[in-house]
Amino acid sequence: MSVRVEVPDGSLFGPENLPYGVFDPGDRTFRVGVRLGDSVLDLAVLLEDSVFARPDLNAFLAQGPDRWREVRERIQRLITTAIPDAAVHPLSSVRLRLPIEIGDYVDFYASIDHATNLGRLLRPNGEPLLPNWRHLPVGYHGRAGTVVVSGTDITRPCGQRRTPSGAPDFGPSQRLDIEAELGFVVGRGSRPGGPIPIDECADRIFGVALVNDWSARDIQTWEYQPLGPFLGKSFATSMAAWITPMAALDAARIPLPPQRPEPLPYLREREPWGLDMELAVRWNGTVVSRPPYGRMYWSPAQMLAHMTANGASVRPGDLFASGTISGSERDQLGSFMELSWGGSEPIDVGGSPRTFLVDGDLVELTATAPGPGGSRIGLGEVSGLILPAQIS
Amino acid sequence: MSVRVEVPDGSLFGPENLPYGVFDPGDRTFRVGVRLGDSVLDLAVLLEDSVFARPDLNAFLAQGPDRWREVRERIQRLITTAIPDAAVHPLSSVRLRLPIEIGDYVDFYASIDHATNLGRLLRPNGEPLLPNWRHLPVGYHGRAGTVVVSGTDITRPCGQRRTPSGAPDFGPSQRLDIEAELGFVVGRGSRPGGPIPIDECADRIFGVALVNDWSARDIQTWEYQPLGPFLGKSFATSMAAWITPMAALDAARIPLPPQRPEPLPYLREREPWGLDMELAVRWNGTVVSRPPYGRMYWSPAQMLAHMTANGASVRPGDLFASGTISGSERDQLGSFMELSWGGSEPIDVGGSPRTFLVDGDLVELTATAPGPGGSRIGLGEVSGLILPAQIS
Repeated sequence: MSVRVEVPDGSLFGPENLPYGVFDPGDRTFRVGVRLGDSVLDLAVLLEDSVFARPDLNAFLAQGPDRWREVRERIQRLITTAIPDAAVHPLSSVRLRLPIEIGDYVDFYASIDHATNLGRLLRPNGEPLLPNWRHLPVGYHGRAGTVVVSGTDITRPCGQRRTPSGAPDFGPSQRLDIEAELGFVVGRGSRPGGPIPIDECADRIFGVALVNDWSARDIQTWEYQPLGPFLGKSFATSMAAWITPMAALDAARIPLPPQRPEPLPYLREREPWGLDMELAVRWNGTVVSRPPYGRMYWSPAQMLAHMTANGASVRPGDLFASGTISGSERDQLGSFMELSWGGSEPIDVGGSPRTFLVDGDLVELTATAPGPGGSRIGLGEVSGLILPAQIS
Repeated sequence: MSVRVEVPDGSLFGPENLPYGVFDPGDRTFRVGVRLGDSVLDLAVLLEDSVFARPDLNAFLAQGPDRWREVRERIQRLITTAIPDAAVHPLSSVRLRLPIEIGDYVDFYASIDHATNLGRLLRPNGEPLLPNWRHLPVGYHGRAGTVVVSGTDITRPCGQRRTPSGAPDFGPSQRLDIEAELGFVVGRGSRPGGPIPIDECADRIFGVALVNDWSARDIQTWEYQPLGPFLGKSFATSMAAWITPMAALDAARIPLPPQRPEPLPYLREREPWGLDMELAVRWNGTVVSRPPYGRMYWSPAQMLAHMTANGASVRPGDLFASGTISGSERDQLGSFMELSWGGSEPIDVGGSPRTFLVDGDLVELTATAPGPGGSRIGLGEVSGLILPAQIS
């Protein structure tokens, strides 16, 4: 039996999008699929290729850019015709899991508006941007083992917080926050000792997925000197279930904002690596912010070239994220720390004044970008519900 | 055919040690073995158990402490008799690889002498220890994908270094350093959201291995504010090929030095978690330092309890390291940064005055600890040779 897959009018997941995910149709085996409208197409069945009969995308990622292009073209051709019944599942009936086995996870700090805001909040008497910020994409390693798929509940973390006496106590975070970010998935890996030149980054970055880098600001503020964030971040990072291939974002590519001073040669790029993409941050259903990705200072190619400039290798399935995406306007900020200005200026959330997250809160991030021919592309959402701390 | 395995008199790898590694006897398949004297015993053959016929220890680690004990006892019984020929290989004829598939790698900063020295060198006008240091084991995530086995050559990394003008340039690190550390291998994993109580840590930590956390001090100094070390560390971390089980270190357990102020309850331990272990740092064959592990301020159980106190899960094969091991004396320091006091006081290395590493240098770390009945246990060495930077 064959069927034609219907795509609803105005869908953000039309044939020009085709994000990849890993799903279980109900028989408890996970495999690779693409999303088309409100359906999931089973690629192992559709393309008769065992590389998709696996519970992660890593083997496909390792095959490289020529293969990614070929598979995308084949799918785009096949879906103009009727395809086997057995390859099509309603999105509402499948279970989704993390689409990649993540090797290393790196988080950057690439928004000049966010870095400036955090500098003002955390170091009110100093220059908001530190001297290195305009010379290199500042970043650090996060915890790969606690990246979870969209929809996973988030237990409020406990940890040490400074008390007015100066000594710490231990308990549930009182300043639980979000960071709205864009994650980039590494396709082909690289050799140890062999930096990835910036002109090769387009062949290495497979796609993008929304990321929510949950952040316990009270834990983070106490712990982070001098070696950086650790337990304030490592309890959970949520990632969308769908990875949008870079090929779907051609129409969204725009020049980066100007970089002053000019970056060192290994960070100079020759193609437009900015992305005209708008995010929406929903807090219990209310849109509280619309961060614009197009204002980000450092590009993903610069992040990858920098990350490997010391000879560090990457592996297929490595994930690196942009850091919080904030624009210059009050309704474009990507964290509640900034939206409530350190908790001092509550914002309106469906009629309630709010600063940080309370138990039972739901946060959803979505994003859209221009597609070919005036269409629009949607990114898979990333959502999470806050559960109370577990006190032993 | 059966043989009795000879152990040379005074061997640091006698039947009370039995560290685990992963080796290829010459047929290009890696499997799990234990070291006995100058031999490697193939556990898949000796114990007829397929969990050892794998290229990493992770499946065995996941089986938990009762099983680790049972296997160790079986091996200790079997080696008192003649064992099958096919299970025994000369150490000199096998190829060794990284013994674990590392999920996440965390590096701590647990030596009060090291943290004080670094504080003096990097912040000469402030208090050397930051306010949080005596309240929690400071740590951060490192790059799991660039942990390499002992014997792997280390290519000098390139990166941004600050110049006298204040702006950075890019080139080979001029201040390439070591950090002599002890790594701890996580055995059984834990649930997300479920902290590991400090009293359970003994059942979670499988064993120890020496670690050299190569550090490019010029890259690190420029990049590390505010999110911590990144490219100054991520090019390579060397780990010994042999993991010594905690069970072999019973006779080395000693009380920790006093902790003031008393740690918060989740960090209070009820058994002696210090380790009476002495390292040796050899630079081109000359011993330049003998760092004593027994002076470390924070214990591995405190590190693991802290690392998971926010609900972060661990996986079998996760690695966490102590941070540089330094004692209070000049000949007990675990980094060249400290031994040469920031490069200002060269030390004698086989007749040459030296500060940081030059190309062609070889660094070897070894360690011994008391074993049962007056014996001594050796840890597998970790060595690395510095290759010139690759300039493109």
